[in-house]
Amino acid sequence: MPKTMYKLDLSKPMEEQIHPGHNRWHPDIPAAFSVDPGTAFRMECQDWTDGQIKNNDNPNDIRDVNLARVHVLSGPVYVNGVEPGDLLVVDILDIGTFQEYEWGFNGIFAKENGGSFLTDHYPEAAKSIWDFEGIYTTSRHVPGVKFAGLIHPGLIGVAPSLELLQKWNQRENELKMSDPDRVPPLANTPNPEAAVLGTLKGAEFDRVAKEGARTVPPRENGGNCDIKNLSKGSKIYFPVFVKGAKLSVGDLHFSQGDGEITFCGGIEMAGWIDLKVDVIKGGMEKYKIQENPVFKPGPVDPLYSDFLVFEGISVDDKDGKQHYLDANIAYKRACLNAIEYLKTLGYTGEQAYMLLSTAPVEGRINGIVDIPNACCTVAIPTQIFDKDIMPK
Amino acid sequence: MPKTMYKLDLSKPMEEQIHPGHNRWHPDIPAAFSVDPGTAFRMECQDWTDGQIKNNDNPNDIRDVNLARVHVLSGPVYVNGVEPGDLLVVDILDIGTFQEYEWGFNGIFAKENGGSFLTDHYPEAAKSIWDFEGIYTTSRHVPGVKFAGLIHPGLIGVAPSLELLQKWNQRENELKMSDPDRVPPLANTPNPEAAVLGTLKGAEFDRVAKEGARTVPPRENGGNCDIKNLSKGSKIYFPVFVKGAKLSVGDLHFSQGDGEITFCGGIEMAGWIDLKVDVIKGGMEKYKIQENPVFKPGPVDPLYSDFLVFEGISVDDKDGKQHYLDANIAYKRACLNAIEYLKTLGYTGEQAYMLLSTAPVEGRINGIVDIPNACCTVAIPTQIFDKDIMPK
Amino acid sequence: MPKTMYKLDLSKPMEEQIHPGHNRWHPDIPAAFSVDPGTAFRMECQDWTDGQIKNNDNPNDIRDVNLARVHVLSGPVYVNGVEPGDLLVVDILDIGTFQEYEWGFNGIFAKENGGSFLTDHYPEAAKSIWDFEGIYTTSRHVPGVKFAGLIHPGLIGVAPSLELLQKWNQRENELKMSDPDRVPPLANTPNPEAAVLGTLKGAEFDRVAKEGARTVPPRENGGNCDIKNLSKGSKIYFPVFVKGAKLSVGDLHFSQGDGEITFCGGIEMAGWIDLKVDVIKGGMEKYKIQENPVFKPGPVDPLYSDFLVFEGISVDDKDGKQHYLDANIAYKRACLNAIEYLKTLGYTGEQAYMLLSTAPVEGRINGIVDIPNACCTVAIPTQIFDKDIMPK
Amino acid sequence: MPKTMYKLDLSKPMEEQIHPGHNRWHPDIPAAFSVDPGTAFRMECQDWTDGQIKNNDNPNDIRDVNLARVHVLSGPVYVNGVEPGDLLVVDILDIGTFQEYEWGFNGIFAKENGGSFLTDHYPEAAKSIWDFEGIYTTSRHVPGVKFAGLIHPGLIGVAPSLELLQKWNQRENELKMSDPDRVPPLANTPNPEAAVLGTLKGAEFDRVAKEGARTVPPRENGGNCDIKNLSKGSKIYFPVFVKGAKLSVGDLHFSQGDGEITFCGGIEMAGWIDLKVDVIKGGMEKYKIQENPVFKPGPVDPLYSDFLVFEGISVDDKDGKQHYLDANIAYKRACLNAIEYLKTLGYTGEQAYMLLSTAPVEGRINGIVDIPNACCTVAIPTQIFDKDIMPK
Repeated sequence: MPKTMYKLDLSKPMEEQIHPGHNRWHPDIPAAFSVDPGTAFRMECQDWTDGQIKNNDNPNDIRDVNLARVHVLSGPVYVNGVEPGDLLVVDILDIGTFQEYEWGFNGIFAKENGGSFLTDHYPEAAKSIWDFEGIYTTSRHVPGVKFAGLIHPGLIGVAPSLELLQKWNQRENELKMSDPDRVPPLANTPNPEAAVLGTLKGAEFDRVAKEGARTVPPRENGGNCDIKNLSKGSKIYFPVFVKGAKLSVGDLHFSQGDGEITFCGGIEMAGWIDLKVDVIKGGMEKYKIQENPVFKPGPVDPLYSDFLVFEGISVDDKDGKQHYLDANIAYKRACLNAIEYLKTLGYTGEQAYMLLSTAPVEGRINGIVDIPNACCTVAIPTQIFDKDIMPK
Repeated sequence: MPKTMYKLDLSKPMEEQIHPGHNRWHPDIPAAFSVDPGTAFRMECQDWTDGQIKNNDNPNDIRDVNLARVHVLSGPVYVNGVEPGDLLVVDILDIGTFQEYEWGFNGIFAKENGGSFLTDHYPEAAKSIWDFEGIYTTSRHVPGVKFAGLIHPGLIGVAPSLELLQKWNQRENELKMSDPDRVPPLANTPNPEAAVLGTLKGAEFDRVAKEGARTVPPRENGGNCDIKNLSKGSKIYFPVFVKGAKLSVGDLHFSQGDGEITFCGGIEMAGWIDLKVDVIKGGMEKYKIQENPVFKPGPVDPLYSDFLVFEGISVDDKDGKQHYLDANIAYKRACLNAIEYLKTLGYTGEQAYMLLSTAPVEGRINGIVDIPNACCTVAIPTQIFDKDIMPK
Repeated sequence: MPKTMYKLDLSKPMEEQIHPGHNRWHPDIPAAFSVDPGTAFRMECQDWTDGQIKNNDNPNDIRDVNLARVHVLSGPVYVNGVEPGDLLVVDILDIGTFQEYEWGFNGIFAKENGGSFLTDHYPEAAKSIWDFEGIYTTSRHVPGVKFAGLIHPGLIGVAPSLELLQKWNQRENELKMSDPDRVPPLANTPNPEAAVLGTLKGAEFDRVAKEGARTVPPRENGGNCDIKNLSKGSKIYFPVFVKGAKLSVGDLHFSQGDGEITFCGGIEMAGWIDLKVDVIKGGMEKYKIQENPVFKPGPVDPLYSDFLVFEGISVDDKDGKQHYLDANIAYKRACLNAIEYLKTLGYTGEQAYMLLSTAPVEGRINGIVDIPNACCTVAIPTQIFDKDIMPK
Repeated sequence: MPKTMYKLDLSKPMEEQIHPGHNRWHPDIPAAFSVDPGTAFRMECQDWTDGQIKNNDNPNDIRDVNLARVHVLSGPVYVNGVEPGDLLVVDILDIGTFQEYEWGFNGIFAKENGGSFLTDHYPEAAKSIWDFEGIYTTSRHVPGVKFAGLIHPGLIGVAPSLELLQKWNQRENELKMSDPDRVPPLANTPNPEAAVLGTLKGAEFDRVAKEGARTVPPRENGGNCDIKNLSKGSKIYFPVFVKGAKLSVGDLHFSQGDGEITFCGGIEMAGWIDLKVDVIKGGMEKYKIQENPVFKPGPVDPLYSDFLVFEGISVDDKDGKQHYLDANIAYKRACLNAIEYLKTLGYTGEQAYMLLSTAPVEGRINGIVDIPNACCTVAIPTQIFDKDIMPK
């Protein structure tokens, strides 16, 4: 087990930790520690909300969550000798839970506070608690299913350069300003409220809090990709934008369905992650890995081989309007079709929705050129149910 | 081997066949034959262009393809006793090639004639021929790769009711009219040119040709879903809209990557398919399978376990503009990232593009709620290459 | 589809075919045809008994089978330029059935005529007929199961040199002579009865018939290995003992469980196989592939991921006698344990036995050093049953 | 994480622990603790030798190991309400290593002290140390390979009844006495030397030490089965022979090849295991699970899909003698063939041998009826090597 380089006290908020962590992206957030290439180390992580959600049956904490607080990240890690233009190679050696924290949560955010992929259909907040038992999880709120975790960091990324940060802020602000009164806004631009910025203090804190990009979207630096297959044993190649790369990680998921459609999210948990870092000098140009990270999944994903698959096309389900090759609408329809089917098995719509966001369901773009309909599918592993779910 | 109920002479165009087939969707296209539930049967299929593309190195046939001709389908099959409201259960028992036709084609359509997913980057027509050798395929136009086929019908579906057909025509016409001068149009509405409509003749032919929906998009009836995992051994549950269901099939692919991104398409081929049909009476309401088919993939998909995965986000690669959770752009970026990487291995952009459209690559919607960036990935099986493709 | 180089008329016995085939191993059996390295070709094969077993419910043909007749093989194929010391590389491109012959058989041989792995428990002849429907098979004699074929040649091998043949005959005769009165004999030494030897005639026929090794055991040349994973897409590396290698093939199985425990055997069928041959000059010494073939399985084996596994140890089930690390007894116990369990599901012992010999069950040597008990297991895929078979 | 019910101090021998554990099977060894059905709990385990093997490059500790000491087990656990005739259902929830003990060992035992499967070929002691890095392991003594652990208990079992124990002792003694002077003996009968028997003391200790069966062989109670697929997420059904079942566990392996052919063994380690117990009342008769446990493997085994497979037949490699359907010899030949091949890649014979015993290689009984040769195979995953190992 590698040395724990980043230790947390889960009873305290992120800014009161020995290593305070951060919840914004900015090149000037000080590194929490540094390591040499070739080093393995352990980092502990809070859940992405910094402990706002409790293990009970009341969804009000989901409804009232302070989203200015997310995602509390562990890091940054400064990797010695790594420079812009290099590739930072990160091995996810292992991930686990804490003895005192053997559960996670999933929630549907309320339309007024966060929303979700199907927020027009499911505008109210809901919550499900998932208990872990070794490699498996079950939920008292979604009975009749049990599955092996596909444990992964929802968020892992390197720091942007100042130039890249400015590009982000500009393009996202332009999007937001294209519909400035929208609730929720089209993008979350920098917001000093509830910012945590490592050991920064005073004027430097204020500057960085005002400039720092929110952690919600995935971007060129990786970040909140929410890729369920980035699990144990994966190897990631990150483009490097600042000296030392400044790697951060958080938002651990015990499991997640493709799309993370309830937004909150997968099975969210606190836990630890063992990483190993290395470098490919000059790799960004050599391999043209410049716009986004590239990765190789690990070999221990749960092996489910039997799926029931739901299709969707890019016709709006509410008004029947035809959209042009729109994969979002097609995936939405596939998910809605799956939910309607799961309801015939006795689930509520909310239960089915949370199941799609937590179980290892596969979300695919199948056809994206057959004008005017995209075809997307969501594939549910049948072996996670305690009964036969096939049509008869 | 079940009885061949639908036999073709590949040297003749579809309207000159004993069973002429069809290339439009309409409830009044006469059934080619009828079977009882529980019956297995073989149908032969032309390639989707009705033989327009030749096994040579000249892409002009791709460039000049007559798209009014596609997709030539085999059928419809009338299933006795099946009625609207039922589910038609279709087993894909097996699929194969003809001894005289052991090759397939992939092409990038020209921007002026069909276009493709990355048409702004690759506007010129290109073609690759793929030779089959048992379960494997290789291409003289894309050297260094060999993979097992994931053979499937790109298109399988049932006839729409007249009401459903009218709904399709209306919604697609509205989309088309929202930008009436666009080239290519946003949707392909009914077009009598080059229509093939089974044994219909005279005024009835003219009426149906004028009303019949094009086969390009997938819709509520299934149709051109281009789902690579709908391969041998799959079982599909179709909602039924007309008496006898009227099942048709075509557009066989020896293999395809998720998205079928070059539009032409997978590895397109002529061949045969063995189907078995059955019925679940009243199943549409009972299982709420009403909007789209549902299916269970077969157990013999090629087993690749080692992937290199490319991520993309919903920022336009040309102008850097931020889009709102747009999975299409995210998948486009993932594909472009993959192509840039493959170019460092020595492939041309066109070769890499055709590889992504033919090899069993996985296209995923990973995160679809992390405002404002969707995250999509394309995963390439490393075992199909004859050398190590990992970064070093 | 490669050219059919070896065509059969299934209504005729092997010696009356245009290419008569053979059922003994001998270097002097003339090649049926020759090919260059790099060539793909199709060969047709009789079932291993030369058509003795019929598609009916009467097991008397199993009971009375003439085992002097087995295995009728297609070939030999002379590969130009291949010499002793080389490796013959054989790709199994594809395997299939004939339209007129869409079924196979499994049987338990009677103790007096062939016997089987559990012959002391199941001494009577039994038969099950398996119908093929595309990639799947079912049996009216073993209800409640359906599985995808793992189609493979039970027997594929190259000709021995005269020296190697003499070594075989000597060592097998010594074994047989160690208990000369045993019924059945410990080994089947050369026997001219019912020999088929290609185009040989007269004195040469008589000589070769007297010397030729029986095809039953696997040996240095490959031969009757009955390896279920040697299926479509596999690549085999054979040591070469004679000029031209002289490759022969037969005993096609639609499916088989590890061990082929009923002896007759897997799901035995007639069919065709597409092969491609190549050579690694001097490969026997370079890779030390001298004693037995080496192979790489294909990527399209049916994907079953859920198994129920039965253990066995090397204690005789009849008298409770302890044997020393005996994997045969351990596997026997594992199989008997599985059969007893399957009987609680309603199967007869014979049905369960034939199921283990036909379905893709995995037979493993788990522990072979824990004095004095070996541990072997047999793993049954649960997804092949139409009901839940787990203990409750 | 379940409560740790069995805690060890790895610096102390087993008899000095708070819960002393045991290294013999006997119904009268007192339970270390009791739990109700439905309970999950953690147990810590010493490595099987009780810490005799050290993390260094000197194999003398392997050569001189005191085998009277093995296997030190944690337990027994008394499960309340469980009685003879029931099935004890054990879920292996999770398994892991200790922070201070992130390595394991493999060894070839010397012929004079333990021996191994290929002891005639490799009579000298050898040792390899394997370092763990998250899910992966590598060895400075076997370079060029890296693989994911298939972590499992080599030994898990329930207590025998007194009658069953007597049956074991009798049958094993009879075997031993059939060749009383053999070195090593054919079986290890009860031996009071180095016995550890939980909290037993005085005359009771002496009696049980004299009667208790050695833990080396697997038997009706499970025990030392060394089944590599009994890994995380597995569910085992044990027949119950005594009140409370008295479950014990130990001999944890980070990984193992089928057969555990070097005898010492897999990658041997200390660690912890999380178990959950339940009961099926009267299940032994209902499901006829009476002779050996039955299990369902977990879904997170490492997914390797590309193998190179070596065959072996039952002809002795030393004297060329033909044996009758002997799976042991066939597997031995398969392993020897694999080792000869691996030597052409630059490994020593000892390295190759230890690789086969540690990596997740598959050992199969392929054909067990083809008189007189059994065919066994050993399949090596090619993806564990850092270079291409295929013949060229």
